[in-house]
Amino acid sequence: MFNGKLLQLQQSLKSLPGIGEKTAQRLALFIISQDKEKAYRLSDSIKDAVDSYQYCSVCNMLSESDPCPLCSDPVRDSDLLCIVEHTRDVYHIETTREYKGFYFVLGNLLSPVDGIGPNQLHLKKLQNLIREKSFKEIIFAISPSTEGESTIHFIAEYLKSENLILTRLSTGIPYGSDMEYTGTVTLMNALRRRFPI
Amino acid sequence: MFNGKLLQLQQSLKSLPGIGEKTAQRLALFIISQDKEKAYRLSDSIKDAVDSYQYCSVCNMLSESDPCPLCSDPVRDSDLLCIVEHTRDVYHIETTREYKGFYFVLGNLLSPVDGIGPNQLHLKKLQNLIREKSFKEIIFAISPSTEGESTIHFIAEYLKSENLILTRLSTGIPYGSDMEYTGTVTLMNALRRRFPI
Repeated sequence: MFNGKLLQLQQSLKSLPGIGEKTAQRLALFIISQDKEKAYRLSDSIKDAVDSYQYCSVCNMLSESDPCPLCSDPVRDSDLLCIVEHTRDVYHIETTREYKGFYFVLGNLLSPVDGIGPNQLHLKKLQNLIREKSFKEIIFAISPSTEGESTIHFIAEYLKSENLILTRLSTGIPYGSDMEYTGTVTLMNALRRRFPI
Repeated sequence: MFNGKLLQLQQSLKSLPGIGEKTAQRLALFIISQDKEKAYRLSDSIKDAVDSYQYCSVCNMLSESDPCPLCSDPVRDSDLLCIVEHTRDVYHIETTREYKGFYFVLGNLLSPVDGIGPNQLHLKKLQNLIREKSFKEIIFAISPSTEGESTIHFIAEYLKSENLILTRLSTGIPYGSDMEYTGTVTLMNALRRRFPI
């Protein structure tokens, strides 16, 4: 039943994260059922966005301008640099309004099985940026996974001669979660890193 | 943070069913992060699909050809016509391989609050099709909601002089579900429609 252009659309949609076979089919049918103007708008907005965004030459974040609005913001805290994996992590941290420093986007985490080695981490660029801007503290805001841990330790080693304070986000039981559903490693870490009330 | 072309893309994605604010943001960032070719392919496949599909002039189903492959299939059971709300219901029923008759897609259910009256149901077209093809049984495969019930009863009334067997899909406890989580109305219906083992 599903064939031709509809099947092609379904397959394109399936390449998006979190969109499986069924959802892609439902979305494809919705797209061709709605009025054409809306579908054209979606199609055009994809091309427009892809064509307008590039990597910031300073921090590697995806941005409509180069340098990005964050790197060219004169009122941000020039003592702090936050290292993240993805541009989306920058957006996420910005929503907290807790951090006012600069960012550097790695684009990858070290992962030998996926062929991601130190050369994919833009380390020379990171080092140049740190020397040029004289940051005082480097904050690693990277997922506490196997790849995350080895990336943090590799970069910390790489930067150790730079006379910097190196910190990372705290790990522990997430706010609002239930003890009962907290994983063993998380719980172990939370015990080790317990703090006075 | 989210602005310009990325915000536009997010808003276009949010118009899709089941895609909320957060998912739209995640998809938009994914789309601009992946390689351009993939994004272009998605954009093009949307336009291609929308441009290739139209409503079948016989059954109202969305199709690349007119009449659609089902209406022009000579080996289907010409005694049976199944009335559904959406094209996606046709796909859904076809996956069961249980039904071999023809279809008619209403496109809407009666819903006075949404301004959907009998004129939006293509009833004249349905009546002409039934007379032309001399179906023997009309099966209503329509969700058992308030709108579904009133649509079924309205069309049944409309067709009552046509000398047809009118049937509808059985209602009851869905296969594989748990009694405990079955809604009261479903359970009530299942009791009333109980059948011998």
